[in-house]
Amino acid sequence: MPIKFAVLGDGAWGTAIALVLNQNADHRVVLWSAREENARILRERRENVRLLPGVPIPQSIELTTDVKQALDGADLGVMAIPTVFVRETMRRIAPHVHQDLPIVSLAKGLENDTFLRPTEIVQQVLGPRALAVLSGPSHAEEVSRGSPTTVVAASLSYDLSRWVQERFHTDRFRVYTNTDVVGVELAGALKNIIGIAAGVCDGLGLGDNAKAALMTRGLVEIARFGIALGAEQQTFFGLAGVGDLITTCISKHGRNRHVGERLARGDKLPQILASMSMVAEGVYTTRSVHDKALKMDLDMPITAEVYRMLYEDKDPRAAVQDLMRREPTSESDFGP
Amino acid sequence: MPIKFAVLGDGAWGTAIALVLNQNADHRVVLWSAREENARILRERRENVRLLPGVPIPQSIELTTDVKQALDGADLGVMAIPTVFVRETMRRIAPHVHQDLPIVSLAKGLENDTFLRPTEIVQQVLGPRALAVLSGPSHAEEVSRGSPTTVVAASLSYDLSRWVQERFHTDRFRVYTNTDVVGVELAGALKNIIGIAAGVCDGLGLGDNAKAALMTRGLVEIARFGIALGAEQQTFFGLAGVGDLITTCISKHGRNRHVGERLARGDKLPQILASMSMVAEGVYTTRSVHDKALKMDLDMPITAEVYRMLYEDKDPRAAVQDLMRREPTSESDFGP
Repeated sequence: MPIKFAVLGDGAWGTAIALVLNQNADHRVVLWSAREENARILRERRENVRLLPGVPIPQSIELTTDVKQALDGADLGVMAIPTVFVRETMRRIAPHVHQDLPIVSLAKGLENDTFLRPTEIVQQVLGPRALAVLSGPSHAEEVSRGSPTTVVAASLSYDLSRWVQERFHTDRFRVYTNTDVVGVELAGALKNIIGIAAGVCDGLGLGDNAKAALMTRGLVEIARFGIALGAEQQTFFGLAGVGDLITTCISKHGRNRHVGERLARGDKLPQILASMSMVAEGVYTTRSVHDKALKMDLDMPITAEVYRMLYEDKDPRAAVQDLMRREPTSESDFGP
Repeated sequence: MPIKFAVLGDGAWGTAIALVLNQNADHRVVLWSAREENARILRERRENVRLLPGVPIPQSIELTTDVKQALDGADLGVMAIPTVFVRETMRRIAPHVHQDLPIVSLAKGLENDTFLRPTEIVQQVLGPRALAVLSGPSHAEEVSRGSPTTVVAASLSYDLSRWVQERFHTDRFRVYTNTDVVGVELAGALKNIIGIAAGVCDGLGLGDNAKAALMTRGLVEIARFGIALGAEQQTFFGLAGVGDLITTCISKHGRNRHVGERLARGDKLPQILASMSMVAEGVYTTRSVHDKALKMDLDMPITAEVYRMLYEDKDPRAAVQDLMRREPTSESDFGP
């Protein structure tokens, strides 16, 4: 019997991970689309024309919009859905999810208002089960083309993280295990704030010194926040932390970095959002994290400046100046 | 009485730091050149024509080749010399160095054969004194043009690190303090190894995922090595660690990254070195660190592959493949 994977979500990342899983001849991979229109194009073209153009989707990957067909007899659910759609999608599939089905989340973000992590939402809607998170520096475009990629699989269940490692691992897709689910999920959401700041840095032409310092101090402050919420410091200095932060901050295609570049050019948030077709999660994460940091009395100077640029029309040059002019301090301060 | 700074070394970094110190009207800055020819051009042009073209050197910075003049009455010696020249330069200036003169080192590297850090060489030649290290993501070109830059000043003497912070700090040059001299110096040397690997990654066109993973896992392995030699883990995740690593790995101008790009193109080490006018420290650091890691039984897979590419003609594609094909493991392993 082949091992069956139900990949939920036909975006770039869902499609790319289906291609990775499909490389193992013992696997049966079903790619579920939430929308009939998308599924029809995928079936006709055998290509994710809009998001992964030029990458063929082999016939061996089953394409469907039928939740029951996707989940029936599945050994693993792979949740490849933006955080903002996780709750409604979980509700939709709930009647067909077996109570023992383990789920791996690929979502990066936090639920607005509730501040819940993606696996917490899954657990709330579907009930307790073995859960894992797959994260790290992993542009879907590169993964789909077989560029070498290294990620981390985190789970409270040692068996599940080891099993995910074994099943997802290929000679172009390397998987490390980790037990810090909280840290991996928080790092994946929080790095987008720093990605916006990196875009501002690029847009103002501040140079490599400024950008590297921003990324380093940004990493320190998101780690400080994560640790206060129960994450392990180490995770922020691993693939899901600094690794993902690096791609977010240096990639030409990053959506959050793009928001920052536009801010530096003088554009305002409403017009930036109106012109973007895809979600830049960092815009919302910044607000949630800024609010929570205030309540927890945590010092997050970069997040605070990103918040002011996004929501209080602060001039980006003034924000940078205010960061450079803070009282000199010592480096080793991860505490609250 | 103005505070007198003797900047020893007229390279790009020495010149840039003299410009930073010279911004404070209470400072008297003397820039010492080891070679008369360099000093003559600096005096005539008031510009470091070769290394920092277009940046004027104000008349208020004194230029000299006279060690005695530079050091007489100095409050601080700033050592801006490549590691390979530190020992001979310290011997040369020794007769004129006051026994209480504190010295700040800007050198990044390790002495070949002895494996000594720059401040250890200084101490050996000049005798015990207050020592500090200034490090972090700080391309001299950007510093000299006033781009925002953030660095760390590390010293076992709390007073000296605080004093250096106070004196070097400007609104474009931000200084954090740190007490981990060993870690800051080791990080500054070791990141060059990863810089070579990043160049290989770029030269082979492996993409952002591969490069970010390489930088992350590279950081883990140089931290592991540093910790085994007495450094603090935290330092590797600060400005002198990940911060400097980022500029080294992403900057177009990095010499170590350049070596890696040439390796990826199929060039061999002797021809690469023959065509470079400046020292790529990482080439020698790789050999020293690889040898020491073997003796200490430390796992440094990226360093080992860089060593094989540099000194055993290993094909870069095979090196990458061997890294991707290692036995899958867990992420949290900083131990020996």
